[in-house]
Amino acid sequence: MQGRTNPYFCYMKTTDFPKKMMGKAICLAKKGAANEDGGPFGAVITKGEQIIAATYNNVNGDQDCTQHAELRAIQMACKKLGTTNLEGCVLYTSCEPCMMCLGAAHWANFDYIYYAASAEDAKEFGFVYSNMYYNSSTEDRHEEFKMIQLCRNEALKVWSQK
Amino acid sequence: MQGRTNPYFCYMKTTDFPKKMMGKAICLAKKGAANEDGGPFGAVITKGEQIIAATYNNVNGDQDCTQHAELRAIQMACKKLGTTNLEGCVLYTSCEPCMMCLGAAHWANFDYIYYAASAEDAKEFGFVYSNMYYNSSTEDRHEEFKMIQLCRNEALKVWSQK
Repeated sequence: MQGRTNPYFCYMKTTDFPKKMMGKAICLAKKGAANEDGGPFGAVITKGEQIIAATYNNVNGDQDCTQHAELRAIQMACKKLGTTNLEGCVLYTSCEPCMMCLGAAHWANFDYIYYAASAEDAKEFGFVYSNMYYNSSTEDRHEEFKMIQLCRNEALKVWSQK
Repeated sequence: MQGRTNPYFCYMKTTDFPKKMMGKAICLAKKGAANEDGGPFGAVITKGEQIIAATYNNVNGDQDCTQHAELRAIQMACKKLGTTNLEGCVLYTSCEPCMMCLGAAHWANFDYIYYAASAEDAKEFGFVYSNMYYNSSTEDRHEEFKMIQLCRNEALKVWSQK
């Protein structure tokens, strides 16, 4: 029964590391959705098998429109590692990053970005990015930022159940 | 002689408010360039005739790759005004915002953005944005974010004299 009290229980059965980390990001999105001040987006940054940062969107809690899960995680990871370059790190995010977070990822210099829900999914649920973002080529964007989709259905459930 | 000790002296002679504010942003870029931990980029956010935030790039000082002048100013302005929506505010920046800062401006919801040096100027001086940024239409970008260029030559001097 101990496992059932673990908020990451449902996702922890896999031994696949990227899926485990994405499970954690999605659980953080759930936590953000359940928190009055939070938002339904979660992000995790790893280096090797170590989790460097894990957080959710806290725009309302922090009264700061930049506090998306990914940007917040990048700020935490830079502080923790004492560096402005997160080369060697991987970002897991419950939703494809918006233009601000992708721009931050450019400077962070991640090895890869795993995302669950797509930018198009986000739009359908009312999270509307900039026109400049939607006018960009999805294929080029995914190639430039080395983006891989994972666990989309699990991420969409967080928004559907909200 | 008092004026000469004012770091904004050279730009203060104009009574034109946007030029005065851009002069302040460019002086902050100079200050950032002169500071070992800073970067040669400055930003000012105003609401009416009041300055809400004024700062320079402090990526190295803060050990945080997100601490560009504009994003930092947005974070400061949100905190100061206690809001996540900066509608009614104007951003003045010594250089056309990178993708991260423009993405942050999307959420901040500025009335206008005044910029001095262009993204192309930045590239020439070695500040290289993402391909996604360069692949965007300059005209569409300027229209979406209501961007107006001002004092380009003065801003370029900061980088040339560095």
